Amino acid sequence: MVSLAVQKLYGYAGRILEIDLTSKKATKVETPRELVRNFIGARGFGAKILWDRMKPGTDPLSPESVMVLTWSPLTGTTAQSFHKVYAMFKSPLTGSYFRSTGGGFFAAEAKFAGYDAIVITGRAEKPTYVWIRDDEVEFRDATRMWGTTVDGTVEMIREETEREARVLAIGPGGERLVKIACLVSDDYRTPGRGGSGAVWGAKNLKAIAVRGTKRPELFKPDEFGKLVREQVEVYKKSSLFDPFHRLGTNSIVYSFYTLGHHPTYNFKNTELENVEVWRPEVLEKYVMKHVGCFGCMIACGKKWKLTKGPFAGLYHDFPEYETHWSMGPTCGVTNLEAIQYANMLCDKYGIDTISAGNIVGFVMELYEKGIVTERELDGLRARWGDPDVLVELVRKIALREGVGNILAEGTVRAAEIIGRGAERYAMHSKGLELPAYDPRAAKAHGLSYATSNIGGSHMIGWNKYEILGMPERFDPLAVEGKGELCKRTQDQIAAYEAAGWCAFAELVQTAGYGSVEQTMDWIARALYAATGIEEFRDPRYIWLVGERVYNLERAFNVREGFTRKEDWLPERFLKEPFPRAPAKGQIFELEKLLDDYYAVRGWDLKTGIPTRRKLEELGLKDVADELEKLGKLPA
Amino acid sequence: MVSLAVQKLYGYAGRILEIDLTSKKATKVETPRELVRNFIGARGFGAKILWDRMKPGTDPLSPESVMVLTWSPLTGTTAQSFHKVYAMFKSPLTGSYFRSTGGGFFAAEAKFAGYDAIVITGRAEKPTYVWIRDDEVEFRDATRMWGTTVDGTVEMIREETEREARVLAIGPGGERLVKIACLVSDDYRTPGRGGSGAVWGAKNLKAIAVRGTKRPELFKPDEFGKLVREQVEVYKKSSLFDPFHRLGTNSIVYSFYTLGHHPTYNFKNTELENVEVWRPEVLEKYVMKHVGCFGCMIACGKKWKLTKGPFAGLYHDFPEYETHWSMGPTCGVTNLEAIQYANMLCDKYGIDTISAGNIVGFVMELYEKGIVTERELDGLRARWGDPDVLVELVRKIALREGVGNILAEGTVRAAEIIGRGAERYAMHSKGLELPAYDPRAAKAHGLSYATSNIGGSHMIGWNKYEILGMPERFDPLAVEGKGELCKRTQDQIAAYEAAGWCAFAELVQTAGYGSVEQTMDWIARALYAATGIEEFRDPRYIWLVGERVYNLERAFNVREGFTRKEDWLPERFLKEPFPRAPAKGQIFELEKLLDDYYAVRGWDLKTGIPTRRKLEELGLKDVADELEKLGKLPA
Repeated sequence: MVSLAVQKLYGYAGRILEIDLTSKKATKVETPRELVRNFIGARGFGAKILWDRMKPGTDPLSPESVMVLTWSPLTGTTAQSFHKVYAMFKSPLTGSYFRSTGGGFFAAEAKFAGYDAIVITGRAEKPTYVWIRDDEVEFRDATRMWGTTVDGTVEMIREETEREARVLAIGPGGERLVKIACLVSDDYRTPGRGGSGAVWGAKNLKAIAVRGTKRPELFKPDEFGKLVREQVEVYKKSSLFDPFHRLGTNSIVYSFYTLGHHPTYNFKNTELENVEVWRPEVLEKYVMKHVGCFGCMIACGKKWKLTKGPFAGLYHDFPEYETHWSMGPTCGVTNLEAIQYANMLCDKYGIDTISAGNIVGFVMELYEKGIVTERELDGLRARWGDPDVLVELVRKIALREGVGNILAEGTVRAAEIIGRGAERYAMHSKGLELPAYDPRAAKAHGLSYATSNIGGSHMIGWNKYEILGMPERFDPLAVEGKGELCKRTQDQIAAYEAAGWCAFAELVQTAGYGSVEQTMDWIARALYAATGIEEFRDPRYIWLVGERVYNLERAFNVREGFTRKEDWLPERFLKEPFPRAPAKGQIFELEKLLDDYYAVRGWDLKTGIPTRRKLEELGLKDVADELEKLGKLPA
Repeated sequence: MVSLAVQKLYGYAGRILEIDLTSKKATKVETPRELVRNFIGARGFGAKILWDRMKPGTDPLSPESVMVLTWSPLTGTTAQSFHKVYAMFKSPLTGSYFRSTGGGFFAAEAKFAGYDAIVITGRAEKPTYVWIRDDEVEFRDATRMWGTTVDGTVEMIREETEREARVLAIGPGGERLVKIACLVSDDYRTPGRGGSGAVWGAKNLKAIAVRGTKRPELFKPDEFGKLVREQVEVYKKSSLFDPFHRLGTNSIVYSFYTLGHHPTYNFKNTELENVEVWRPEVLEKYVMKHVGCFGCMIACGKKWKLTKGPFAGLYHDFPEYETHWSMGPTCGVTNLEAIQYANMLCDKYGIDTISAGNIVGFVMELYEKGIVTERELDGLRARWGDPDVLVELVRKIALREGVGNILAEGTVRAAEIIGRGAERYAMHSKGLELPAYDPRAAKAHGLSYATSNIGGSHMIGWNKYEILGMPERFDPLAVEGKGELCKRTQDQIAAYEAAGWCAFAELVQTAGYGSVEQTMDWIARALYAATGIEEFRDPRYIWLVGERVYNLERAFNVREGFTRKEDWLPERFLKEPFPRAPAKGQIFELEKLLDDYYAVRGWDLKTGIPTRRKLEELGLKDVADELEKLGKLPA
């Protein structure tokens, strides 16, 4: 084996593109070999680059704020479902580290243009979009498309560039610095959470469009081809493939409700009348076609049409499971048409559907409690279940219109502004609105809400052991062993996300194999065949990278001032017993679970900060040194 | 010169496509030489085919109802602006003959596929679209796109056929048999008036998609090329070219208001506060880009964006002059954003913007007069100028929701249903809602409203002499000579529409020449160079065809039972003096103007029916015979 320093970078494009919007300079730097070896790609690249480049205390909406877009050595290859774009940044919503992912074709196209990552810094003087055509990078005036929805923007950019250009853009939400604004792709795949759209808006960056003609060279193409055929076979035999292909995430809405961990009415309850509208056989009637991301046979995306009611005529991407939940049960809304319409507004305006629906549920509870009245809500009577209120509040949030200007700040800041005890009803962790699982009904899953480096996300530690009993069942209500189970899940996700995989696809493959080990082994073999990097051959190394990434993200937050006190969940979960079987009577044992988790993590129990020993074990001595210098490393 | 019977048909595609939706049969018949010689094409073809094929008394929404789509021997050539699609049918709104035109690329593409016209009959068992790929014609299942807006439909059809396919489709409006529903092209050009969309809806015909690779052969290509170069030069030097290119029909909104013939508040008034929002310098701020139809350098279409207010983010085709008027001054609305949004709803749902706005104005006057209250209006308080009422009523009409189900029938039928004297406020002629000119302020123009074969349209006798004083000025308020001026204008339009021209383009060219004679002479030369048909060489023959077409359309209506009593205008124009200078105090002298007009037309004064003598003079002896047989020819 030749030394890594001179070895050809198989699988990778070999260059990172740095875009400085202030100076309108695009710089191509060689993809560092150490970055590759230590962090693989995608989420790993993002964690490391953000740690290196983003000074602590930086305002996420300042020119100094850095955003990293990444993908992986498997992106743009024939491997299935490794083609998502990862966005890493400091969140204007949570003030924490953030990573957000979206599907579509952007990442593969950017890889084809010859890049392993795009690092975005600075602030343009006026609205700008960046057009990347292989080696050519242009900063173009986006004044004419400023103010328009994502679809209008994509149309204009394609007219000015190439019809086949792949585009990531912000809508009016991002422009107006809505804290839950996101990036949206030309095919409505969104790195949705944490306010990435506001980061672009603050940089006057309307869009990045890319078209590439190169193809990555693989280390062992034949072996790689065999591995992909194996993957395809496993997908096909997986019990999850068919339901996920047929209905995407919609396949689980009703069954998750029946499982009893599906919160309703802003987490106040778990029951909902008329929930039958989410039965698969009802949802299927809306489905018009299947839509896949680049190189993914699952094609979990669906196009929906509405032919009845006030929103009849609509033809758009369907709402995902989380959107159904956040705009449906959380708000007591069972009008699928209104949910679909509000989902479309989010896509076009570029805001996060989970947070948007969650904020509406928050407002409805405040209205119920009399904390806000129609006077504060521009005349809206925000009664539970009112579909018109849902649609109108979503629009107002996206455009910062009237009360929307307050709600656009997210539940935490909005509750501060509203006062009168509103903060009690803000259902979030670290400022990120919570998704569709009640932590009291799935403890390791809930523990990940509390400890996640990005706040209340289901994508950091989605606990398949508890939620699906897959590949083996863990009692979701047990407390014992949940530190370990949470860590294991978080590390695995960080590991396969460093390889650029889609979480949904991992579920399919793991269900097909029947074991996580086989999945991780497959990833290791695929990474090695693609890159030839010796370390990647060992699945234990892939796990190690996962834990390394997870700890580095944690260190980023520590450097920003986060400690144990931010590993928190709303009082409702800690004190109010869960009302429904099978988790009836349960509360979330936060402190006990945290102690267990920190111990398993090798973190300081008092502060929740990784110890020097743990960091050094993970090859992060420089990180330990920096935290120590800042006085943030526990003794 | 060889006999026409065997002469090659230069310019023409040579075939007419007959589509029978009942039997799913597509038949190609040779384009008849006599049809060509006597009617040239486009509107001429439509008049003749409809006369021949449509039995009197046919329900426009029955399977027996016939629709003819046509274009001309100049369509798809390099000639400027001869590429519109003409739709001829019996209107479900007016019960009369109807011709409606739209721009875009459909007609040229259909010509390239090898057809001079498409004749549509029958009714499909289930939702169907027709896919024409040169000689191949397929009847395809449209069940999946049924219920969706025009843009969704176009997207689905292009996925199923070819990306470059040109599409004419109906939206939910047509499906729901809204009487003001229309056909909409993939680029939102609409044969807008008279309910063509309902005719398709009743046939279960969702769309026609076409792609063609042939090119028409010209008789004298070099001479034709020279004529086109002449046309381009005349366009360029025309005083109308620049304003029409810069702002399209929007260039005239404010100036027509200042000229004093622009009705406001459902024709009750002519003044409007805040009308300055239509000043060109204000409108120009919305314009994003120029959009042209096939082969037209005027490119009068514009894309607009909205960046402020509740509809911020929108990027869509602009509202035309008539839409601004019908949704603006007629309703007292000066909120351009709401007008733009309502215009977009009409485009996506596929309904006529002129009638839609007019109906809203009608409702607002009924509300003002207390004839309807919010109880009848689903809780809407339809106060003059309320932009939300405009948007909501347009949506309700398009979807036949609530009170929209009544309003979707058009003002005449809606007034009948509402009763209580509502019919007094239905501003229509023959059931077609009136457009943006007050007949009291332009008598020949108004006379065309009253006598038009399709009802209250501005496109049948748009009187440039009165409205623009172009190419020579006629006193708009004078009564004398207006029969002749109305006939002359109607016949000229019928003539150049038989050649397939765009009315807007004719204005530009005539302004460039400074005379109608030169324009008609140019058309004759172009038609001859394209087709080699000797008769077309003489501009007097082109005029004759115009008058022939006009009389044949009239005969169609006579056969349906129309007489002088339908040549009518609302009482408001006949009795209430016009309130504003320069037409202050004027009324519309209907009976006197009709007498003059019929005399000039050579029609029977008592019944308004063409005489045998006139019909025979125009080569329409068979028409006279048929009317006589039916007892409808005056003695």
